[in-house]
Amino acid sequence: MVLVRPQLAENIGKAARAMLNFGLAELRLVSPRDGWPNPAAGPAASGADTVLAGARVFASVGEAVADCAHVFATTVRKRGVTKAVVTPERAATLIRGEPGQSAILFGPERSGLETDDVALARTILTVPINPAFGSLNLAQAVILVAYEWSKGEALAQPPAVDLDPPAPQEELDGMIAQLDAMLVTGGFYHPPDRISTTRRTLRTLLTKPGWSSQEVRTMRGVLAALDGAKRSRA
Amino acid sequence: MVLVRPQLAENIGKAARAMLNFGLAELRLVSPRDGWPNPAAGPAASGADTVLAGARVFASVGEAVADCAHVFATTVRKRGVTKAVVTPERAATLIRGEPGQSAILFGPERSGLETDDVALARTILTVPINPAFGSLNLAQAVILVAYEWSKGEALAQPPAVDLDPPAPQEELDGMIAQLDAMLVTGGFYHPPDRISTTRRTLRTLLTKPGWSSQEVRTMRGVLAALDGAKRSRA
Repeated sequence: MVLVRPQLAENIGKAARAMLNFGLAELRLVSPRDGWPNPAAGPAASGADTVLAGARVFASVGEAVADCAHVFATTVRKRGVTKAVVTPERAATLIRGEPGQSAILFGPERSGLETDDVALARTILTVPINPAFGSLNLAQAVILVAYEWSKGEALAQPPAVDLDPPAPQEELDGMIAQLDAMLVTGGFYHPPDRISTTRRTLRTLLTKPGWSSQEVRTMRGVLAALDGAKRSRA
Repeated sequence: MVLVRPQLAENIGKAARAMLNFGLAELRLVSPRDGWPNPAAGPAASGADTVLAGARVFASVGEAVADCAHVFATTVRKRGVTKAVVTPERAATLIRGEPGQSAILFGPERSGLETDDVALARTILTVPINPAFGSLNLAQAVILVAYEWSKGEALAQPPAVDLDPPAPQEELDGMIAQLDAMLVTGGFYHPPDRISTTRRTLRTLLTKPGWSSQEVRTMRGVLAALDGAKRSRA
């Protein structure tokens, strides 16, 4: 991630935080307006101090990307430059799919990248935003690109879900039979010619949840309590 | 987007800006700490004033999502709650693929959603972040979810099949309240110090199916029959 002439150190800190959230640590700065290092960056980084400490400063964009094989320029507006324009998603795929190091350029907060900066890039990276309200700030642009990049990383795997599997069918059947007996007693099934349809409706409804064995046991406890209440009053 | 007990109005403004960047405009607030409307939100919204002006305030999460068929709870930590966990990408697919309105809950800046808030949701939404440095702020979480949602906007597909959507949350609440009253009468809740945990377990279990309005009505009929049987014998 290459921040080109960033104005506020606070935004450098926010960008560092956004990067580290998604496992990126290599930050390069081109002529930060207020100098570097800058104490205002630390608090905004919320603990991403290693990224700030490792940040390297360059005098020009050319020097900052000298060792990179792929350079992306993040811009919102079209620049009249004829280059491929990709989304963050597509950029992440390109970065992963090709050998060599990639650099992503982000312009100054107020003005964005200059045409000369963009000229150094092979590809334009544009975040597709609401055409009626385009107002991404620097850290937001960084986080969206970092987020897309991280999807290909190990950390981006969906968190393990220790959801219990649905109970075996016989346990479900036991619960349905218990309810059915209570409903027969309670006179729920009428008129008689609708019994089989109603039973099927209830089975569909109770099969839909995919309740686990534990959940089926809980429901049977609920039914027993309702039945017990009835009997104790009978 | 539902911000639950947000602390700083500035963060409400930032969330509004993040939303509008990706074409989302409906913001709901649950008990914002510093009241609403709040002049501190405006500057942070950077022009997303229509979102702020249209924000609706609710006293509880339940009221805020009463008309929603799908409720997602955004959390980072695991909660010991057995619900499906999805990424923002997967959530966006689910939101687009199924009929009915969706709500996405975001917790307070410092503490995140409470267990009782999470209990109202069918699905947990987790942004996969660097396990060694997890530090997403409120607006960042909002922008990532909004960004993923916006990807499907241009190529919005027709809703899948003709499955009835889950009943609005208030209908589900009505059914749960009916059962709860019967269980209180039946002495189901004991010992007393376990009541809130048991209630939460039941809510999770009854939220899981995603029953349609028709199915919820059927279940209420079942409950009424069980209750009627009890009363006629009392």
